[in-house]
Amino acid sequence: MADSKALTTRATDFSAWYNELIARAELADYSPVRGCMVIRPNGYAIWEQMQRALDQMFKDTGHQNAYFPLFIPQSFLSREAEHVEGFAPETAVVTHGGGKELEEPLVIRPTSETIIYAMYAKWIQSYRDLPLLINQWANVVRWEMRTRLFLRTTEFLWQEGHTAHATEAEAEEETRRMLGVYRTFMEEWMSMPVITGRKTDSERFAGALRTYSCEALMQDNKALQAGTSHNLGQNFSRAFEVTFQTASGDLDHVWNTSWGVSTRLVGALIMIHGDDAGLVCPPRLAQYQVVIVPIYRTDEERSAVLEASDRVRRELVSAGVRVHLDARDGMKPGAKYYEWEGRGVPLRLEVGPRDVAAGAVMLARRTGGKKEHLPLAGLPVRIIELMAQMQHDLLEASRARREAASIRNATKEQFLAHIEGPGGLVYAGFCGSGECEADIKERTKATIRVLPDEEFRSPEPPVVCMWCGRPSVAEAVWAKAY
Amino acid sequence: MADSKALTTRATDFSAWYNELIARAELADYSPVRGCMVIRPNGYAIWEQMQRALDQMFKDTGHQNAYFPLFIPQSFLSREAEHVEGFAPETAVVTHGGGKELEEPLVIRPTSETIIYAMYAKWIQSYRDLPLLINQWANVVRWEMRTRLFLRTTEFLWQEGHTAHATEAEAEEETRRMLGVYRTFMEEWMSMPVITGRKTDSERFAGALRTYSCEALMQDNKALQAGTSHNLGQNFSRAFEVTFQTASGDLDHVWNTSWGVSTRLVGALIMIHGDDAGLVCPPRLAQYQVVIVPIYRTDEERSAVLEASDRVRRELVSAGVRVHLDARDGMKPGAKYYEWEGRGVPLRLEVGPRDVAAGAVMLARRTGGKKEHLPLAGLPVRIIELMAQMQHDLLEASRARREAASIRNATKEQFLAHIEGPGGLVYAGFCGSGECEADIKERTKATIRVLPDEEFRSPEPPVVCMWCGRPSVAEAVWAKAY
Repeated sequence: MADSKALTTRATDFSAWYNELIARAELADYSPVRGCMVIRPNGYAIWEQMQRALDQMFKDTGHQNAYFPLFIPQSFLSREAEHVEGFAPETAVVTHGGGKELEEPLVIRPTSETIIYAMYAKWIQSYRDLPLLINQWANVVRWEMRTRLFLRTTEFLWQEGHTAHATEAEAEEETRRMLGVYRTFMEEWMSMPVITGRKTDSERFAGALRTYSCEALMQDNKALQAGTSHNLGQNFSRAFEVTFQTASGDLDHVWNTSWGVSTRLVGALIMIHGDDAGLVCPPRLAQYQVVIVPIYRTDEERSAVLEASDRVRRELVSAGVRVHLDARDGMKPGAKYYEWEGRGVPLRLEVGPRDVAAGAVMLARRTGGKKEHLPLAGLPVRIIELMAQMQHDLLEASRARREAASIRNATKEQFLAHIEGPGGLVYAGFCGSGECEADIKERTKATIRVLPDEEFRSPEPPVVCMWCGRPSVAEAVWAKAY
Repeated sequence: MADSKALTTRATDFSAWYNELIARAELADYSPVRGCMVIRPNGYAIWEQMQRALDQMFKDTGHQNAYFPLFIPQSFLSREAEHVEGFAPETAVVTHGGGKELEEPLVIRPTSETIIYAMYAKWIQSYRDLPLLINQWANVVRWEMRTRLFLRTTEFLWQEGHTAHATEAEAEEETRRMLGVYRTFMEEWMSMPVITGRKTDSERFAGALRTYSCEALMQDNKALQAGTSHNLGQNFSRAFEVTFQTASGDLDHVWNTSWGVSTRLVGALIMIHGDDAGLVCPPRLAQYQVVIVPIYRTDEERSAVLEASDRVRRELVSAGVRVHLDARDGMKPGAKYYEWEGRGVPLRLEVGPRDVAAGAVMLARRTGGKKEHLPLAGLPVRIIELMAQMQHDLLEASRARREAASIRNATKEQFLAHIEGPGGLVYAGFCGSGECEADIKERTKATIRVLPDEEFRSPEPPVVCMWCGRPSVAEAVWAKAY
């Protein structure tokens, strides 16, 4: 049963608001296992919509799904030096199986490069076997000390794409293509604007040549890394001897990429659109896009209203709308509104006796504004228009909010005032040195989220590093981040 | 690259045939991790089709998906006495996480009753919260000594439904309903006839009140347990204190069910329909239902044939058919036929210059029979008819094969001759004693697959136990099994 106490407001305590929203909407729950969460049906339904959309986009770009083992022999992880350094400290290790101690401990996959490239070494012989474009939907485990529902949990669900190519150029093209797929998904499905670009070396994936990222700004002005795409070069193909015969008969190592997004995106969705009444879900990802609430007092009214409501429901289903008729007896309409608002359903249709008589329904938008009467004639078309509008408006509102929280060409003083004040994104010059990055992180907790792609860069390239005053080698975007 | 050597025949060595078929069709591969397999894209595509169909059937019967942790505290497993006895010996155990030894070891889920019912105890308060109908798609781990691709692997993929009800009758109804869903799926999607019924106590799920099963007979006359549905009674709700307030204000324990099918079904699909040329996939589960192979010699022929082939492809796509145009250059048509036959594609359309001129294509069925010309006019409708026919014929052929390998009202001598001879199913009387079961198993390796539901029972109920001669309490179906 949902709690009827109002949520802590975002302004009062964003973190408390986030946790209470998840409980209220029954999206997830803490489990008895340290650091692990339970994704409840309302939360999982959003993840399923995300999976369906992304999976189709992966298939449309030529990828196939497969499944690789959960377990990775400990020795595999060690073959790529940076990779083991990055991941070994956060692994869960199986030491016993079937009642006996194992000869070699097995690591639960924190990511699957090593086990997958070991298989690719078997499967790839010739340039004719390339490109090999595989994706996996799976659970992974990274031992986390401080966890938060959806954002950082010991076990999480994700997809990981792993591809092999004949040339460096093709691998780079794939890396960028999949970053683009993520961006399209985040903007068009999640209504979440992102800045794309390259990570600095200190934020690079352990074992990658280059990591690209989609970064979004949440309502509390903290950034969130929403998806990454890695050009792995030949680092793993050398470690796992993934070679192929080229068209000219030489032997070469393949060029790999990997890319992933996770259930963290559900957390991002909550934090970018949610309001003080609960979740706000963009229509394309909502389990139910429309909820119908019948309103009646007498038995006679009840039967007329339920009949009309069900007619509306059937019409919307025929039009491909995901709709739920909430016909629960013994629950007041107001209580139903409250519950569905908390769960983020985009549109609500109220059907009362007078509406039925007038051949209309009352529409309420989850994102506010006046309620309005909609005539039953042409309702499905109107609903589909309204959803497209909401999908678009949520994106633009988030973009406007992000831009209002961004400053450009910042000096050190402006940087500090912004990061330590309201927070948000700071665009400024960067000398390229890891020491500057580390110093800034220690002083302010802010990190370089991304060296932005051209379309996100400032019209005037910065001249000096905002921190040390040396010449700038690239514009960078700083923020405190999840 | 697929091997071009013929498969070992089923008659020569069924087990070698099975493994070679899987390698040839690139359905799965052995992994470097003991007992774990890699499901390759061609195999995973079948599992995806299975998932899609089952998931819709689960949703149509009111279930929602959720996700529970991979890890189960060792103490949880011990709370239900039979359950721990059944599963503890085959668990994989995590003893270290994040570089430290854990205070309490974590078991990798062999099945999720314990962790799920621990959560249900939190979520269920009142009869209004019931029934709770949840399903999970997940990986599970059972430490197996002898493994076989798809059929028995240390890690496998499955779904597990877990429901809670207010009454014993509702739980029993749900248990039987989901057994029925499995049967429908196996017959209508897999074209695999099954016998449904109850398991004896010795084959019951560890912790269940009653286990029901769908049993199929493979082409080597060994049975395979394809899916099970368990009425758990109040065993787990007592162990995890899952209580609810009844409508009359009392406190009671809920009644649970659980039910699952796994990637083992891909193995069943191979063994029930495969032939000496490779996989035979029923159309409803095939990644590609139709493959189009263009045939040409000259460049001129090539462009005309490819254009016509693509037109056919587009028409079939519009009709909802999953079709692949194999336009690979430098590969002879015969080599393509061989490859797609091995992978089980139901229908092949060959498009040559003379076909194009005649406004026709040549059809070859994976299940044999004469090739025939099909006119382009009305092709999609004809293809859909052919697929429905094949779906039906595969089911009937499997059913006829099973019936031919079954004997009824068997005496002990007939039982022994059948089990130790050709193999198959033996219907006979059973005294109900565990000793008889154990004795038969030791002597012959045959087990009671199921105490069959009424529609599968023999017209004349058996009078005596075929083994010991005491009065029969139920007809039983014996077989050697996977």
